Amino acid sequence: MKQETPACMPSKGILLTAALALALTASSATAQTPLSLMPLPSSITVGEGALTVTPAGGGPSAFTYSYGQTHDPRLEAAVRRALIRLGRTCGGEVLRSTIDHPTPANPSLLIKVAAPGASLQTIDEDESYQLRVTTQQVTLTAPNDLGAMHGLETLLQLATMEHGACVLPAVDISDVPRFRWRGFMLDVSRHFEPVASVERTLDGMAAAKLNVFHWHLSDDQSFRAESKKYPRLTETASEGEFYTQDQLHEVVAYARAHGIRVVPEFDMPGHGSSWIMAYPELAPQAPIATLPVVYGMPTAVLDPTRKTTYKFINTLVEEMGRIFPDAYFHIGGDEVRGEAWLADPQVAAFMKKKGYAKPAQLQAYFNQQLEDILKKHDKKMIGWDEILDPALPKTILIQSWRGEASLSDGARQGYQGVLSAPYYLDGQKTSAQMFLADPIPADTTLTADQQKLILGGEVCMWAEQLNNETLDSRVWPRTMSVAERFWSPQSDRDVSDMYRRLRVNSLKLEELGLRHISGPETVRRNLLLEPNPEALNILASVLEPVDFHERSKLQHTNGWTSLDRLVDAVVPDPPSRQHVAGEVDAIAGNVTLPSPPDPAVDLSGDVPQGPTPTKEVAIRRLRQRFLSWQSAQTRLLEDVQHTPRLSDAVTRAGQLGQLAGVGLSSLAYLESHTAPPAEWQAQQMSILDAAAQPSALVRFTVLNSMRKLVVAAAQGIDRVGY
Amino acid sequence: MKQETPACMPSKGILLTAALALALTASSATAQTPLSLMPLPSSITVGEGALTVTPAGGGPSAFTYSYGQTHDPRLEAAVRRALIRLGRTCGGEVLRSTIDHPTPANPSLLIKVAAPGASLQTIDEDESYQLRVTTQQVTLTAPNDLGAMHGLETLLQLATMEHGACVLPAVDISDVPRFRWRGFMLDVSRHFEPVASVERTLDGMAAAKLNVFHWHLSDDQSFRAESKKYPRLTETASEGEFYTQDQLHEVVAYARAHGIRVVPEFDMPGHGSSWIMAYPELAPQAPIATLPVVYGMPTAVLDPTRKTTYKFINTLVEEMGRIFPDAYFHIGGDEVRGEAWLADPQVAAFMKKKGYAKPAQLQAYFNQQLEDILKKHDKKMIGWDEILDPALPKTILIQSWRGEASLSDGARQGYQGVLSAPYYLDGQKTSAQMFLADPIPADTTLTADQQKLILGGEVCMWAEQLNNETLDSRVWPRTMSVAERFWSPQSDRDVSDMYRRLRVNSLKLEELGLRHISGPETVRRNLLLEPNPEALNILASVLEPVDFHERSKLQHTNGWTSLDRLVDAVVPDPPSRQHVAGEVDAIAGNVTLPSPPDPAVDLSGDVPQGPTPTKEVAIRRLRQRFLSWQSAQTRLLEDVQHTPRLSDAVTRAGQLGQLAGVGLSSLAYLESHTAPPAEWQAQQMSILDAAAQPSALVRFTVLNSMRKLVVAAAQGIDRVGY
Repeated sequence: MKQETPACMPSKGILLTAALALALTASSATAQTPLSLMPLPSSITVGEGALTVTPAGGGPSAFTYSYGQTHDPRLEAAVRRALIRLGRTCGGEVLRSTIDHPTPANPSLLIKVAAPGASLQTIDEDESYQLRVTTQQVTLTAPNDLGAMHGLETLLQLATMEHGACVLPAVDISDVPRFRWRGFMLDVSRHFEPVASVERTLDGMAAAKLNVFHWHLSDDQSFRAESKKYPRLTETASEGEFYTQDQLHEVVAYARAHGIRVVPEFDMPGHGSSWIMAYPELAPQAPIATLPVVYGMPTAVLDPTRKTTYKFINTLVEEMGRIFPDAYFHIGGDEVRGEAWLADPQVAAFMKKKGYAKPAQLQAYFNQQLEDILKKHDKKMIGWDEILDPALPKTILIQSWRGEASLSDGARQGYQGVLSAPYYLDGQKTSAQMFLADPIPADTTLTADQQKLILGGEVCMWAEQLNNETLDSRVWPRTMSVAERFWSPQSDRDVSDMYRRLRVNSLKLEELGLRHISGPETVRRNLLLEPNPEALNILASVLEPVDFHERSKLQHTNGWTSLDRLVDAVVPDPPSRQHVAGEVDAIAGNVTLPSPPDPAVDLSGDVPQGPTPTKEVAIRRLRQRFLSWQSAQTRLLEDVQHTPRLSDAVTRAGQLGQLAGVGLSSLAYLESHTAPPAEWQAQQMSILDAAAQPSALVRFTVLNSMRKLVVAAAQGIDRVGY
Repeated sequence: MKQETPACMPSKGILLTAALALALTASSATAQTPLSLMPLPSSITVGEGALTVTPAGGGPSAFTYSYGQTHDPRLEAAVRRALIRLGRTCGGEVLRSTIDHPTPANPSLLIKVAAPGASLQTIDEDESYQLRVTTQQVTLTAPNDLGAMHGLETLLQLATMEHGACVLPAVDISDVPRFRWRGFMLDVSRHFEPVASVERTLDGMAAAKLNVFHWHLSDDQSFRAESKKYPRLTETASEGEFYTQDQLHEVVAYARAHGIRVVPEFDMPGHGSSWIMAYPELAPQAPIATLPVVYGMPTAVLDPTRKTTYKFINTLVEEMGRIFPDAYFHIGGDEVRGEAWLADPQVAAFMKKKGYAKPAQLQAYFNQQLEDILKKHDKKMIGWDEILDPALPKTILIQSWRGEASLSDGARQGYQGVLSAPYYLDGQKTSAQMFLADPIPADTTLTADQQKLILGGEVCMWAEQLNNETLDSRVWPRTMSVAERFWSPQSDRDVSDMYRRLRVNSLKLEELGLRHISGPETVRRNLLLEPNPEALNILASVLEPVDFHERSKLQHTNGWTSLDRLVDAVVPDPPSRQHVAGEVDAIAGNVTLPSPPDPAVDLSGDVPQGPTPTKEVAIRRLRQRFLSWQSAQTRLLEDVQHTPRLSDAVTRAGQLGQLAGVGLSSLAYLESHTAPPAEWQAQQMSILDAAAQPSALVRFTVLNSMRKLVVAAAQGIDRVGY
């Protein structure tokens, strides 16, 4: 039996979701485990049978490989890495001896790459690949090594256990990304991230088939890239935490080895306190004595009227442009405040002479000069929304932090753009919300030509509320759901199946070396100094951080704020949301909430994930869950006494116990087929409403599902025969 | 109430253990939590009351500090780090604002350091300090910043919660180390460790008051230190994993900032395959094409007869001697095989001319030349046992990997030495065993003058069976128990209290950034690809790795061996040994085993840790434990089907269930006051004996305690009125 799904193009993809989901889950006819590819390939046909990597019961495997056509050192290294990972999944060192010695005859894996990759990866490089697995052989075909590297990631996701053997199910995959610019931005200015963390992030990006690492290297709080020409930038304005040029080179090489371009950002002319602290002559204002501790938009700006400013920038662009060979150079350009310009007589005179009434006009002038400098060094300009100005040529690329409407506006004016607004990770949105946000939504009013100007999108990780310990769990696995949005067909919008695949790949990312699961566990252990902080783990499992703005407002977060409290020990969009949603759904699937307490609440992530349990199983699981919440509350109220940093968790610990009470009484009414008293529903809802209030910088993930459960109990879903 | 313990000198310390233990636990009169200082200070008096760091209920603290005398930048940085850590323990950012601004008047912490530390730390530097905490103020007094840094570590260990407040209990501590050389050796040749791991290790060393980082930078498997003079050493013979000179400098600076000397080791003339692969002219043998994958003692040796060899070494010592400013330079010198020398006509002729019958004599000649070279560069020689030869001057330092007898022999001949043999971490001994091994045992026959030649000891971490993921859990917390041996009085030998303090400080080390608890958890999660691999955690909790030799023999470990199996997911000397011992002790404390199955089995670690539970509590805990083993077995036998890398765990999983059966039936007989059938004891013992057999490269930690429980049940301890 074979099932075919047609190869698809984005334009005709509307019906594809159903077809793809069918292909992926119906594969259980040949493999016990449904496929969990992520991002979804643009076309897949599931065949019969599977290729055995390691036989049942272990024993040596003869999994071999060879190159059918060309192979360059980058591909060879990627193949070695992939085989080591395959060995891990499938049982280890059986592969090791083959890794250094590709064999030519009848290999298990035949890699046919037509030509080596471009020496400098561009946005136009072909990233497609074909992957065909039969019971005899894997054939990976690609026009170049970049496509082949993507194919290797897909191959690794295919490996699964079947009857004790490690197998690759027979499939025929033809894959090509929807967008050319699939980026991830990391702010290392507000909090520093060591090279190891950056490289770990690049590992995750490669697994998610992302291809642009946008490195936000300077901001008001620091300048992190060593300049030999202007050494004071890091000597004075990095607090000793910066990347040496050797390290910058190392990261660029590491990224290239993983098929990722590096676009450095040096934010100008605003967010420039660090530059100005190091070189006061760059600014029309008093020297800056210390780096700003408070976040926001300081008035520090470079002086666009002095020739020396451009000389400085020219030298810096030349120096950094050599370290970062990518065609694009990010000049920031966001949130420029004009006060210092307007206050300076010389700048004011310049503006008057040029006829500029507003600072934005002076910024456009500045960007024109910058454009000339970049051009001289063979660089294309990329910057945030604010650089969009008719005075700038159409070669520039706009990164939209303001939203999809702003992006479309740019496209209508003929500017290329990438979307970032919906993908700000510190917005703490669910994977579902970010996954559903599309750089080119189905209802776009852009013409086909205008759509071509939308190159893709970028996930952004700002670091005001981030440190090395929380980096991974803020970034992963959510970034993988956005990566799928950037790669897979527009029609791919099945949130429930996305979550199923996300949970599988989340564990694979952790195995790859990311620390989004183990990191927060460690933070919790260290908070309590307990070998097994079980009660705190239970509380944390149903909490997630509030978003950036709420945290900033409630905590007055600044550069001195310790990032080691309850909010830093919980992760965005934890699995509890889907687990409880699934269990409640099995009991009360046809209940609709009478009036959601806040119409702005997004429910897209509140979906069951994986197979729906029977009602009996769901009730049993929920009861266990609620009982564990109850005992966690008791333990937590003790723990908090000994843990000053957890003092703000008292309210949440108490509410956890109250939620348990709401849940257990709901289950009691449902099971006993008894109607609760008239006032019961309102009482329970008021408990849930109270739990929805801000506290400890975290919010519960299960409240909507709990509301549904209360309504089911109050309406006696059982008694009316559900 | 005040309790005094006299300041102690090692020589009169026999009665000190009891006195110290009393002081440390009886402090519960003033503090709820007993003190958990580690290493134990040489003298401590516990006072009344405590100094509040942060008040109950949180709120801003006025914890301030100032310098009474001199302070250099190193001390300032150490104080800042200490205050940040104190802030973590006590509640956070309340301290932050004080960190950059010491206040002069009535500070909470007054730091009185008489003189700055030596610009180059030597073995003669005074490391003593006094720490006095009253209800009003902490006074830290030291002759130099090095002593003060040790005092800060003690201060951090004092902080505890009392009635919701974070306090420092009133104490008067006068502390000085017993040994001057308290080292930790890390082999980075067999498996590489990145700089971040090295620096994390240095953090742990500083917390344990260790003061020498011995860096084993070259061996047959690789050369890890970049040489600008001989670049092929790392270009050819490091597989791309090495430390750049910048990184070497960085580590040396980091170590100095933490009061730690760095002694580099370049192993000569044996273990030299990497040197010879890079520069074949160094050896009297055929060139080496690839680095050896198999461990052991390759025949590759440098040629001691050529002038060019010494020219090479001279240049390398000069270059590395600048990077590593320490007075000592480790030349290895271990396990030299003479075959290549004897086979080479030129070398053989040289030996004949000199009248050398044995290769060892040629090595002594080589070492004499080396000694001249080192002296020229102001370096003192340190090397392994084999360098001991009357031809060498008494200025050399012998590191004994052969044992305490070999060390004493050297001392009798007038050579200084440090002991390493009992502290090989890959021997997988318990903390108790290593803690009890003494560089100068109480029954030493050395004279007082000879004893002075024993400078201390070094913990050694070899890396044949180690990788970055297992490093921390192989090193910590066990190294802390050895560090106490090196620092604290000889009389400090209470294993049970050592374990109590070790468990507390183990969690503090993890909080400091070590990953000995979270690392293995991650390995287990990644093995199973399960968010919460509970059953595997239960199995792992009662297992520990077999020792280096047994693993080598059973696994034929080589450079290609994957270090990601069950054995790599378990930790040496886990807490289960003491927990089960304590529970069984509460039931069957007066049972002695009739005939331990193996008289070589060391029982020193099988001690209760912490307060003894009542018999009823012990029985309840044991039953829960056994039931958890039972259900873990069921789950594990399923899990293993899907986890090829766990296939060797089947036997151990089955045995876990059998052990549960032994335990549950023992409890049943004990509780029912029923005598088991005559053959029962032998049956149970044969199950335990079978579980003691080698399997999966791990062994159970609880077998001796289980034996005791069986005997108790068979003898009817309860029925005879225990």
